[in-house]
Amino acid sequence: MIAVILRVERICQTGAVASPVNPPRGMRDFLPTEKARREHVLSVIRRVFRAHGFDEIETPVVEDSSRLHSGLGGDNEKLSFAVMKRDLKESDLAAAVASGDALELADLGLRFDLTVPLARFYATHRAELPRVFRAVQIAPVWRAERPQKGRFRQFVQCDIDIIGDQSQLAEVELIAATVATLEALGLGGCSIRINDRRILRSLVAALGIAPESYERALITIDKEDKIGVDGVVSELVEHGLVADHRIEEVTSLLAGLANAAGAGWGLIEGPAAPPAWLDEPAYLDLLAIRAAVEMSGSDAKLVFSPGLVRGMGYYTGTIFEIAHPDVDYSLGGGGRYDGMIGRFLGTDVPAVGFSLGFERIVDLVRVPDTSAGDAVALVYDQGVSAAQLTALKAEVIASGARVTLAQRARNSTQQLDQLAESGYVRFAFVSDETRTLDELELRELSTR
Amino acid sequence: MIAVILRVERICQTGAVASPVNPPRGMRDFLPTEKARREHVLSVIRRVFRAHGFDEIETPVVEDSSRLHSGLGGDNEKLSFAVMKRDLKESDLAAAVASGDALELADLGLRFDLTVPLARFYATHRAELPRVFRAVQIAPVWRAERPQKGRFRQFVQCDIDIIGDQSQLAEVELIAATVATLEALGLGGCSIRINDRRILRSLVAALGIAPESYERALITIDKEDKIGVDGVVSELVEHGLVADHRIEEVTSLLAGLANAAGAGWGLIEGPAAPPAWLDEPAYLDLLAIRAAVEMSGSDAKLVFSPGLVRGMGYYTGTIFEIAHPDVDYSLGGGGRYDGMIGRFLGTDVPAVGFSLGFERIVDLVRVPDTSAGDAVALVYDQGVSAAQLTALKAEVIASGARVTLAQRARNSTQQLDQLAESGYVRFAFVSDETRTLDELELRELSTR
Repeated sequence: MIAVILRVERICQTGAVASPVNPPRGMRDFLPTEKARREHVLSVIRRVFRAHGFDEIETPVVEDSSRLHSGLGGDNEKLSFAVMKRDLKESDLAAAVASGDALELADLGLRFDLTVPLARFYATHRAELPRVFRAVQIAPVWRAERPQKGRFRQFVQCDIDIIGDQSQLAEVELIAATVATLEALGLGGCSIRINDRRILRSLVAALGIAPESYERALITIDKEDKIGVDGVVSELVEHGLVADHRIEEVTSLLAGLANAAGAGWGLIEGPAAPPAWLDEPAYLDLLAIRAAVEMSGSDAKLVFSPGLVRGMGYYTGTIFEIAHPDVDYSLGGGGRYDGMIGRFLGTDVPAVGFSLGFERIVDLVRVPDTSAGDAVALVYDQGVSAAQLTALKAEVIASGARVTLAQRARNSTQQLDQLAESGYVRFAFVSDETRTLDELELRELSTR
Repeated sequence: MIAVILRVERICQTGAVASPVNPPRGMRDFLPTEKARREHVLSVIRRVFRAHGFDEIETPVVEDSSRLHSGLGGDNEKLSFAVMKRDLKESDLAAAVASGDALELADLGLRFDLTVPLARFYATHRAELPRVFRAVQIAPVWRAERPQKGRFRQFVQCDIDIIGDQSQLAEVELIAATVATLEALGLGGCSIRINDRRILRSLVAALGIAPESYERALITIDKEDKIGVDGVVSELVEHGLVADHRIEEVTSLLAGLANAAGAGWGLIEGPAAPPAWLDEPAYLDLLAIRAAVEMSGSDAKLVFSPGLVRGMGYYTGTIFEIAHPDVDYSLGGGGRYDGMIGRFLGTDVPAVGFSLGFERIVDLVRVPDTSAGDAVALVYDQGVSAAQLTALKAEVIASGARVTLAQRARNSTQQLDQLAESGYVRFAFVSDETRTLDELELRELSTR
């Protein structure tokens, strides 16, 4: 280590490298201001979900390799960081060379999402959990992606899930709690785009596509906002999902869908009868969800978006995405995945989940000044005793403030500016003679 | 994954295994009650250290292998989990076989402590940090230890450090903040054993031992409470540190130390002159620290313990350990390590640090009932609409309570018991007719 540092230090002296040591590639350190901001957002998320009856759980950062590479993680499995077995022997290495598979040397991996660990957790502890289990997990995940702006190899995910409730009450509780959380973070006025996989399935069936190709067709249909209706039809034809003689009919149906996306609830409640491809039990459920969310007292707007697909193949019912007027990307999304837990347990357990984009939210949230509370810097002269400073500090802390001690610098204007930047709002000079709180002359620190 | 689960499920059916799936060996899941308890302890630690002017930071869970294996971690380096390079080629495997070193296949490792990451963090960001930097880190670390009762392969450490202050004010701030934290956690009445490496060095010099053997001698002297003065002397002779003809003199000196341990401050302030081996500048510093800690308003007791050694070789000045009357192990400890940061930066930076035993503290802390606040369970009949439940839930949350919804079970006595166990303190039955908060008949839930 020392050798490494010295080497880099030498490079620094030649001016080639700005910083002597960095965190691992694609990962971040959090300095005090940013860390405080993240902890503020975390504490609000925790508080609101807790009030809404959700329970926080935690799992280890690693899971057994066989579990991570079980097919539930999709493309993310390829991005996982593998942890090497301890005490590897020469014969282990030789075996890996023979098979050409280096992953044989790993027994654990850093999790790439929170869904696989949740399914494993539920399988481990089902007997100890309530019949309807409302779970929150807020924790880092790791993906060995090519580092680029806004993408990191370690980042925090925030997942909430309700396991064991097949009624729409689960969707409503999830949406109400999530919207309340965003409002508490100062991100009010969100809208929730909502759809149902059953509607998408009846649409694709109406296009004349066979059930086994539904997922492939949906991936194409999802691109409509980018490539237009004609682009979608071309791709469906190209993939052999639509025969040439049906192009016109399919184009007309998809154009109807594109218009429907704008119509929203009007498609169901407008003067005309709903289109034939609109699965009725599904849209009645959506209407019930809307009615209930309206009763939750939030100002969130539910928008029916029959074109909304969302990528993951495991969704079985409602799917939704949250958008905020200030940004053009979603702040989170989720849906019902009644089949997945059953794949782990052997018996079907209904489930609906939501993943909040924690890193995106942290970037948006303005931490209110009041959250820091009163913060006082005691700037002391050289020679003031530790005992005197400790006594004063204890008194100011007892008054409810956050306190830092700083020895008076030669340039005290600059020093006070730095203290203000670090979030301190008042200061006092402390000399030999300042003995009690009453003798402190507290003054405002101004930020420029 | 599914294959694995099914296999284990089959084993379960034969009765051989109780739980179908477990977290990785030696690691823990945290269920809601335990997780809430941990978060409660974390939030108290954060709040009190923040009030005392400490700033929280965070680093990635992995560091570059070369950094972890730099010699700063002592024996813990051997226990680290290595993360494999991505896209390993056959030639990489062949090279590892040739060299016989599997670690060549790893470029990262999970951190085994928070000290190496702090030193790396400080080297990376020094220019952005205040001149005196008061840091808190509360984060998991990993060690591939043999799993055993009370030892885990992933556990949380809580480190606080003051970098850049060479005065005793640093020790005092550290001790005052730590004691205040323990008091806020309901662990008042702590005592702090304190000593100084300079005192130990002058003692070992008085035994006639050469400076290069000080550390080895101290490891032996540290065993006095287990093997007695005679045992210590035998071991020193065995290691060739004490010549036969000096046994009597050394025995008498060490017996004096053993008595001194009981005498505490009396050794300095008693009627007799302090022993010659008591380094004067060091004990004057300790007296100043005691005076200041007394002014901090805490009821912590500082106990001078001239026999206290602490293992780490990097300590240069004061060393201390915190003990609580209820337990016979220490709740944390630390000391001054003025040389270490200099090894990273090339220039000396004074530093003093404290590590709190987070896992031990969590086990001791009783979470007060009041920390959970009001918690209400709304137990509803089948058929009550989602909209009605959502409206009621929103109203009760707005009144300041935590709320869960539960469909009424056939055995409602058992159901209410379970809700009470989960921390809910009041409940109400909700039927079709319960429309507003006023109509809820809230009753106490009793825990048996």
